Amino acid sequence: MKTTHKLILLATALVGVLAFIATVAHAADSLPSWNDGKTKQSIIEFVEKVTKPGSADFVPVAERIATFDNDGTLWAEQPLYVQFVFALDRVKALSSQHPEWKAKEPFASLLKGDLKSALAGGERSLLEIVMATHAGMTTEEFEKIVKDWIASAKHPKTKQPYTEMVYQPMIELLAYLRANGFKTFIVSGGGIEFMRAWTEKVYGIPPEQVIGSSIKTKFEMRDGKPVLMRLPEVDFIDDKAGKPIGIHKFIGRRPIAAFGNSDGDLQMLQWTAAGKGARLMVLIHHTDAEREWAYDRTSSIGRLDKALDEANAKGWTVVDMKKDWKRIFPFEQ
Amino acid sequence: MKTTHKLILLATALVGVLAFIATVAHAADSLPSWNDGKTKQSIIEFVEKVTKPGSADFVPVAERIATFDNDGTLWAEQPLYVQFVFALDRVKALSSQHPEWKAKEPFASLLKGDLKSALAGGERSLLEIVMATHAGMTTEEFEKIVKDWIASAKHPKTKQPYTEMVYQPMIELLAYLRANGFKTFIVSGGGIEFMRAWTEKVYGIPPEQVIGSSIKTKFEMRDGKPVLMRLPEVDFIDDKAGKPIGIHKFIGRRPIAAFGNSDGDLQMLQWTAAGKGARLMVLIHHTDAEREWAYDRTSSIGRLDKALDEANAKGWTVVDMKKDWKRIFPFEQ
Repeated sequence: MKTTHKLILLATALVGVLAFIATVAHAADSLPSWNDGKTKQSIIEFVEKVTKPGSADFVPVAERIATFDNDGTLWAEQPLYVQFVFALDRVKALSSQHPEWKAKEPFASLLKGDLKSALAGGERSLLEIVMATHAGMTTEEFEKIVKDWIASAKHPKTKQPYTEMVYQPMIELLAYLRANGFKTFIVSGGGIEFMRAWTEKVYGIPPEQVIGSSIKTKFEMRDGKPVLMRLPEVDFIDDKAGKPIGIHKFIGRRPIAAFGNSDGDLQMLQWTAAGKGARLMVLIHHTDAEREWAYDRTSSIGRLDKALDEANAKGWTVVDMKKDWKRIFPFEQ
Repeated sequence: MKTTHKLILLATALVGVLAFIATVAHAADSLPSWNDGKTKQSIIEFVEKVTKPGSADFVPVAERIATFDNDGTLWAEQPLYVQFVFALDRVKALSSQHPEWKAKEPFASLLKGDLKSALAGGERSLLEIVMATHAGMTTEEFEKIVKDWIASAKHPKTKQPYTEMVYQPMIELLAYLRANGFKTFIVSGGGIEFMRAWTEKVYGIPPEQVIGSSIKTKFEMRDGKPVLMRLPEVDFIDDKAGKPIGIHKFIGRRPIAAFGNSDGDLQMLQWTAAGKGARLMVLIHHTDAEREWAYDRTSSIGRLDKALDEANAKGWTVVDMKKDWKRIFPFEQ
């Protein structure tokens, strides 16, 4: 064995040992925005037992898969899903190119600012809005549109950029899991391309670890250069039963930890819970009307009803935002 | 800063420096089954320039994505695609449960060993064989069927397990790229679930980095336990123009290096080539009738015709298996 190789092995072993000491000693410090209590403790205990060599619950690094819903779990989803606000802004931006929209629903009502009438057509209206604003351009063009929008749009209540409307305790949790060898994935009903434009910068989650709903694309040559055109056709809906399907399709491995906040996440948590060995299922419960929003069983956005019952029945971890989180957004003091 | 943290940083830096020295000094040694020459050199030069800090061609680790076709690029595809042999074996294994197959094509001919008549119906016959053998069970059941089969099946010519019919130079190349910070992905026309059952063990490529063709699945509860049932319905064909679509869907980032061996890989190479900065496009040309097989423009399996013309016209790297590879399979002396 060459001397450099020996030194590398030695140094690598040293890093391993020191990292283990540091992890054990400072686990609690990794989650400073979490109040002490049984919620925080249930997360730390899970991570410590699956990462402890020789433990009966030990899980090899390759199998440490954690999946996170996005809207309402990693960032705020009130008063409207961020991607829906994006779509509305795009309708306004594109309206000069579409004079026919003035006489055509759902666009006519949208342009008048009448959201309720615009959505009177239900899912069909929503789909029309999505396709008019998300299809008809190349994947590169769409990425640029999202990047430009997210860099300038502001949340109506806090006037902060949407990328600041993320939950500080969850940012810490993502980093804590990764420091313990976990691969963190987003599994969201939101658009996969909409999220990939900013998740790496904001959450440290690279595009290949983002799973979401999608529309179809078509490969074609444009002036001798290959492009992928975004088509107005649904490819995959990554919500409810679609979440375990998406997890299996994209990851091909069952998560050992999963985090959600609504009934749309129930099947992902069930799928995670059904695997062998130690498991962590977590629901974020929006209980803080003052610092964030309080909503659950009757909300039209992020309804949490059946999943809350199942969490209580099965002893899953339920985060009480008001009680468990010291700080909610990064911009808070 | 705590002392343990300082020591970790120091040790980490030490590993980095030593790893860099080792890489530079021993790059050539990482590819011992490649003969010296311009093919090997083109690969090493590419890797060295994109990984050298300060180089004009430097690419950050997160963007070092390399995609590999599987059949004919990482393992042998002659005399039949391995997955097709699997399907034929499954037809035999399942025939006692399907007495009706004795009078029903394409199964009747298959069971008589008459492959030519069985495939006379073209794509429809093939699809019937695939669905009869790949659908109708849970994802976990299918994984076990593939694992059991691949552990026992033998190649008709060499009598080796199929997992030994992999190309030793490519195994070395995968490891060399990963040692240089690349994430290696499979992007294959083959079935995603068929490959995921063994790629981690054989290639060191985890399931979440395997992209392939797929059938749909359905989430359902079976005795209170969630399962994913495999449906006899095509979800995605990851071949030709499907490859860049699959890359975009699953990875969301354009590769900087891509490796294929047939016209089915042409669009993946075009898509890779069209990105900005340094790029590496490689075709494996099957030129060794003695140690492997020699085939290209007129072969029904792994036809290499248009892609070879484009590689020659654009100066992509073409591996001449006979000339460039010292050893082909791991079991060779």
